[in-house]
Amino acid sequence: MNPNSYCVIMAGGIGNRFWPVSNRHCPKQFSDILHAGKSFIRQTYERIAQIFPNHRIFIVTGKEYEEITKKQIPEIPDENILKEPYVRNTATCIAYAAYKIHLLNPDAYMITLPSDHFICNDAAYLQDIKDGMEFVEKQGGLLTIGITPTRAETEYGYIQVKSKDNTRKISEVKTFTEKPNPELAQMFYDSDEFLWNAGIFIWRVRDIIHEFKTYMYDLHALFNTDCKLNTPGEAKFIQSVYGQCHNISIDVGIMEKSQQVYVLKGNFGWSDVGTWHAFHALCEKDDNNNTSNSEKVILNDTRDCIVNVPPRKNVIIQGVNNLIIAEKDHYLMICHRKDEEKIKQFEKLFRLKK
Amino acid sequence: MNPNSYCVIMAGGIGNRFWPVSNRHCPKQFSDILHAGKSFIRQTYERIAQIFPNHRIFIVTGKEYEEITKKQIPEIPDENILKEPYVRNTATCIAYAAYKIHLLNPDAYMITLPSDHFICNDAAYLQDIKDGMEFVEKQGGLLTIGITPTRAETEYGYIQVKSKDNTRKISEVKTFTEKPNPELAQMFYDSDEFLWNAGIFIWRVRDIIHEFKTYMYDLHALFNTDCKLNTPGEAKFIQSVYGQCHNISIDVGIMEKSQQVYVLKGNFGWSDVGTWHAFHALCEKDDNNNTSNSEKVILNDTRDCIVNVPPRKNVIIQGVNNLIIAEKDHYLMICHRKDEEKIKQFEKLFRLKK
Repeated sequence: MNPNSYCVIMAGGIGNRFWPVSNRHCPKQFSDILHAGKSFIRQTYERIAQIFPNHRIFIVTGKEYEEITKKQIPEIPDENILKEPYVRNTATCIAYAAYKIHLLNPDAYMITLPSDHFICNDAAYLQDIKDGMEFVEKQGGLLTIGITPTRAETEYGYIQVKSKDNTRKISEVKTFTEKPNPELAQMFYDSDEFLWNAGIFIWRVRDIIHEFKTYMYDLHALFNTDCKLNTPGEAKFIQSVYGQCHNISIDVGIMEKSQQVYVLKGNFGWSDVGTWHAFHALCEKDDNNNTSNSEKVILNDTRDCIVNVPPRKNVIIQGVNNLIIAEKDHYLMICHRKDEEKIKQFEKLFRLKK
Repeated sequence: MNPNSYCVIMAGGIGNRFWPVSNRHCPKQFSDILHAGKSFIRQTYERIAQIFPNHRIFIVTGKEYEEITKKQIPEIPDENILKEPYVRNTATCIAYAAYKIHLLNPDAYMITLPSDHFICNDAAYLQDIKDGMEFVEKQGGLLTIGITPTRAETEYGYIQVKSKDNTRKISEVKTFTEKPNPELAQMFYDSDEFLWNAGIFIWRVRDIIHEFKTYMYDLHALFNTDCKLNTPGEAKFIQSVYGQCHNISIDVGIMEKSQQVYVLKGNFGWSDVGTWHAFHALCEKDDNNNTSNSEKVILNDTRDCIVNVPPRKNVIIQGVNNLIIAEKDHYLMICHRKDEEKIKQFEKLFRLKK
């Protein structure tokens, strides 16, 4: 890889969709929901560490997750863990990393990755990243990685390509669309012009800063007024900047507006594992369309269930359908799949109860 | 109480209906399913100890439950714990206690109690027992305690009284019927002639031995051939006797046949808590007919469920109906109420799986 290239892993999630398996003490990125033997962020790190040295890997996460990050990824230097005082979405997170890296190396490139996605094929993924980086080195602009849809999913963002030429690996982007309704999702899926937005971005740092200056001037100004990045005053400075930032995604803040956006068609098998539904789609199912993470789970006369329990737990499920059954520590959730949207409220419910 | 009277607590249950809350290591009688703060057998003991001294209280249980019995009821002398080598139903259990007590005191009376029933009103219960004992002292015969039915329950045995005079506290018995089908149960309930069989028996020991001799001669012969009861050879003797006994209840073996059977109409509020269904009937319900044993259980948009979990467990149940959710140690069961009959197989399923 280009010695000016840096990898930024975004790990700002606060973990309520997979409660109680993930929770605010251990959000999804630090959890091993798929029982792969390591957390999502550890997998993400090990994957990318094949092409980036540790000192050029940064992790942006909530300041309360500093310890768990160090514990799970001790290889990363402490100063490469960027601690966010508040949850402020991806535009702020990326700006923090970009301005910081820019001060370290004005010729830097950065690739930004989510920390909590599932990747099937690591080699294809790394090749796509290398290809994307090469493209950006030559061409400039903002590159994102898109995934060819395999269903009319309503939980993902979509990227429309300009060219209908499906053989091209990299295309200009026409539009970004956040989670569509089912009819729109079906149209997107049928049209062959749309890709899923995998939230992976590649650009020259200088270029993204130019875009912040153009489309999010307030944010740009915050990071450039009396800047204390890479000094002992960084934490206090960031506390102040984050206090004044809006909660806005990079897609809405920049990608939808920028005039030079490209998408690389990724080919590595991907899921954001953003819902139990996506988790179910990803996992191996038994003959009755149940997925369970443990051999100690017995399912009798039971269909379409998702079971995620600690490895030592013996569970028997008899005569039920369409349930999500998840347990961690002292928390057990039994939720009908039609009510999955409500799960993100559950942790709060228990906090209020105390 | 008559100084010749003895109390025999039958604790031979092997605990599969309430699995995993009770299990073969800790059957229902040793469990605190109702979260009363003490096990069923401890409650039974404390109730009866108000009218019997410890040396005249006997407990018959599986030999594997000797330790848990001693732990839960340390007041009882060791020699008063009668250890059964095999499960052989109530006729054998009662014969063991009867022949043993008869050798200790040929003028003995005995009252036999199940160890795992729920009693609402202890004072009324003890008064009924005293009244029953007084009756037997005067009249002889076999006395059982019956409960006025409050519904057409199919899970209980029924006792038909000879006299239709409902004002009489003690009546002669016409028939015993094991668990009836729903139509029969409804007829019994409507007829006013039937009582539920609470499994509580009072008689002079000499009389029940006479009945064994008459109706179960094989069993009588086993206990009287080279008898080693109350000697160091008792355990070996019992091992041999139990090895040759049939599995038969006292109701079928004696009560249905004997010519001198009476029933006392109990008035103390009773449930055998023999099924989750009976448990549900007994417990306080919320507005949606759910019963839960813990304040740490949140039920949202959920109806007709039974939840029984450890006290520290936080549970949320969302959008489901008619489930039994029970947890103990490393075991979790989620069972549709229509499948309650299958629960007794579950412990075995896990044993087979290992």
